[in-house]
Amino acid sequence: MPTISLKGKNMPESPIRKLVPYAENAKKKGIEVFHLNIGQPDIKTPEVALNAIKNNTIKVLEYSRSEGSETYRQKIANYYEKYNIHVSATDIIVTTGGSEALLFAIGSITDPGDEIIIPEPFYANYNGFSTASSVSIVPVISKIENNFALPPISEFEKLITPKTKAILICNPNNPTGYLYSREEIEKLAEIVKKHDLFLIADEVYREFVYDNVQHQSVLNNFGLDNHAIIIDSVSKRYSMCGARIGCIVSKNKEVISTALKFAQARLSPPTFAQIASEAALETPQSYFNEVTVEYKKRRDILIEELSKIEGVKVANPRGAFYCVVELPVDNADKFAQWLLEDFNLNNQTVMVAPAAGFYSTKGIGTKQVRIAYVLKKEDLIRSVEILKAALIKYNA
Amino acid sequence: MPTISLKGKNMPESPIRKLVPYAENAKKKGIEVFHLNIGQPDIKTPEVALNAIKNNTIKVLEYSRSEGSETYRQKIANYYEKYNIHVSATDIIVTTGGSEALLFAIGSITDPGDEIIIPEPFYANYNGFSTASSVSIVPVISKIENNFALPPISEFEKLITPKTKAILICNPNNPTGYLYSREEIEKLAEIVKKHDLFLIADEVYREFVYDNVQHQSVLNNFGLDNHAIIIDSVSKRYSMCGARIGCIVSKNKEVISTALKFAQARLSPPTFAQIASEAALETPQSYFNEVTVEYKKRRDILIEELSKIEGVKVANPRGAFYCVVELPVDNADKFAQWLLEDFNLNNQTVMVAPAAGFYSTKGIGTKQVRIAYVLKKEDLIRSVEILKAALIKYNA
Repeated sequence: MPTISLKGKNMPESPIRKLVPYAENAKKKGIEVFHLNIGQPDIKTPEVALNAIKNNTIKVLEYSRSEGSETYRQKIANYYEKYNIHVSATDIIVTTGGSEALLFAIGSITDPGDEIIIPEPFYANYNGFSTASSVSIVPVISKIENNFALPPISEFEKLITPKTKAILICNPNNPTGYLYSREEIEKLAEIVKKHDLFLIADEVYREFVYDNVQHQSVLNNFGLDNHAIIIDSVSKRYSMCGARIGCIVSKNKEVISTALKFAQARLSPPTFAQIASEAALETPQSYFNEVTVEYKKRRDILIEELSKIEGVKVANPRGAFYCVVELPVDNADKFAQWLLEDFNLNNQTVMVAPAAGFYSTKGIGTKQVRIAYVLKKEDLIRSVEILKAALIKYNA
Repeated sequence: MPTISLKGKNMPESPIRKLVPYAENAKKKGIEVFHLNIGQPDIKTPEVALNAIKNNTIKVLEYSRSEGSETYRQKIANYYEKYNIHVSATDIIVTTGGSEALLFAIGSITDPGDEIIIPEPFYANYNGFSTASSVSIVPVISKIENNFALPPISEFEKLITPKTKAILICNPNNPTGYLYSREEIEKLAEIVKKHDLFLIADEVYREFVYDNVQHQSVLNNFGLDNHAIIIDSVSKRYSMCGARIGCIVSKNKEVISTALKFAQARLSPPTFAQIASEAALETPQSYFNEVTVEYKKRRDILIEELSKIEGVKVANPRGAFYCVVELPVDNADKFAQWLLEDFNLNNQTVMVAPAAGFYSTKGIGTKQVRIAYVLKKEDLIRSVEILKAALIKYNA
């Protein structure tokens, strides 16, 4: 029998999805499962985007341009202008989700064996993309005690080798919810310029920022025109995860012309989803205001309720809709599975994502879970009640 | 300034798209350009698919399952049954176009430096996908004199090394239109079993078969359950290239479970396009009958007209909607550019794809072009007239 490649064998299983069969079994037994495990918001997709799809007049569903339609890219550039990100349509390539944007970025700047430094915990699928590109992730540990702030820049410096091609951050951060400050981005700007590295910033949660703090984009006047690559996506912004539209943005012409070759090989991003995404740019500001207020409420209640449980440590997230929580358990993997297999409180239980899968270093984060606060307030309160009861029973 | 990777630099530019700026200039000068260069059919997308999109009732555009929706995969399995391809939903992963199916297949079975043997000329984007995966394509030349039939199996045998992981065919073939016979697939089956290789078959043109010959799938009872991987797509079948939906199919459980990890990393295929693609499976047989009759007519007239031009060699395609034509010119690249830059017949010209980009071996196919017969009969006749006049002027 022919053999699977080493790369194929090494591809990580998604830590978010590996518990899915247990959740399905729980549901079969009549147990209601609160899904705190995945960043699938319950927020409605803007009408303007859904209507554009319903009213489309396509007769022949043709390829679009590999880099995305001209009008859509022009409108994306206008959108960025509002955030003081000064780019033109030619600095943008529309991709099939943020996922593909990241694959194009990694493909354009790395060869097999190269290294990318990433503060951990990090979005678990970065592991998959780097394995697919035969690139190594070199982690720098950020700590729950420091609210998962940027680790000291000296820690990055220590890890830079001739194979290092980039530092990758997610801001606001999935899974920690941490929002990098202007000073932190300045420090990163300095080190990438000093060592001639790229700074890739996954900014898909740009709008999900609370406490009146301003989001800092790597293209906000940090002198990073040659170094910065933004990964973006409509998935969370307009609650349209199923569209699969994102983009890669860079002022570095060589990055864009290289990424375009990857884009041409796969022909084009999906046409219907581009139509919806272009229309979504007309979403009224009131939509975002409501969403932000809603998520802030959810975050506040979640953190407040979690803090009441003895032995639980929780960082205070200021962006995105995740937080990483340390639980008083021997092993969060086992606990998360037990929650689905062996526990229920009046026929209800919760599903969380064990955080170990968000770390690259083995053996750390084993007591942590990621919680996505994508459910309505009452469900979050109930979820924490369930969690509290579960912890007591689990540790008994 | 940070540097682009060697892989990024080596990514090939699409040979189909590199003439686009010249075509755009020609149009600016008021010249009508007949597009024989790209496989974008003018055939209407089935109403049933377009209506499913218009009538969708989605409120929250959520992620779908990474492997594609359960109902859609079940229906795809039923579709294959009609072609004597016996697979179940669990043997199928829905992908973002045939492009992603191929990336998943290559990713699952190769490591950097591995080799895939492909008869050339081949679909140019195979170059892009293999470069993206740091894999080498090892070409076996198929010849216009033999109608681009499968090269002798001894030619494959000579090229097999410990790094060879697969043989990849496209059947019916893009760019040659060649349709492999049962005997040819049997020979390939034998060699892949002998050397424990995978046989990847890009069968996206399965329905585009003329002259009452039957298409032979690698999963049609060749004993290849462990070896065969089918790459498929809705793009051409339903004239919905812009949907970006395809699939990877294999009875080899390890291939599917590995490809699933790649699928999970990118979360899900596009939801709207899946809805359209699922509905497209209800397209009445009359649609395909009409399309096949139309393409057969186009092929017949194209080949007939081309054969009348002195010095033109043309293979007889029995499937897909392409043919490779050898022209009496010094260099087809130059000629194709000249057609757009310096020539017109009553303000009309044609755009063709120089075939050199479909070869991996340097210096061959330099007098050949690929012609896609995706235009209506009258336009094809006129296109050949223009080509004929152009050849006379070019060679004068």
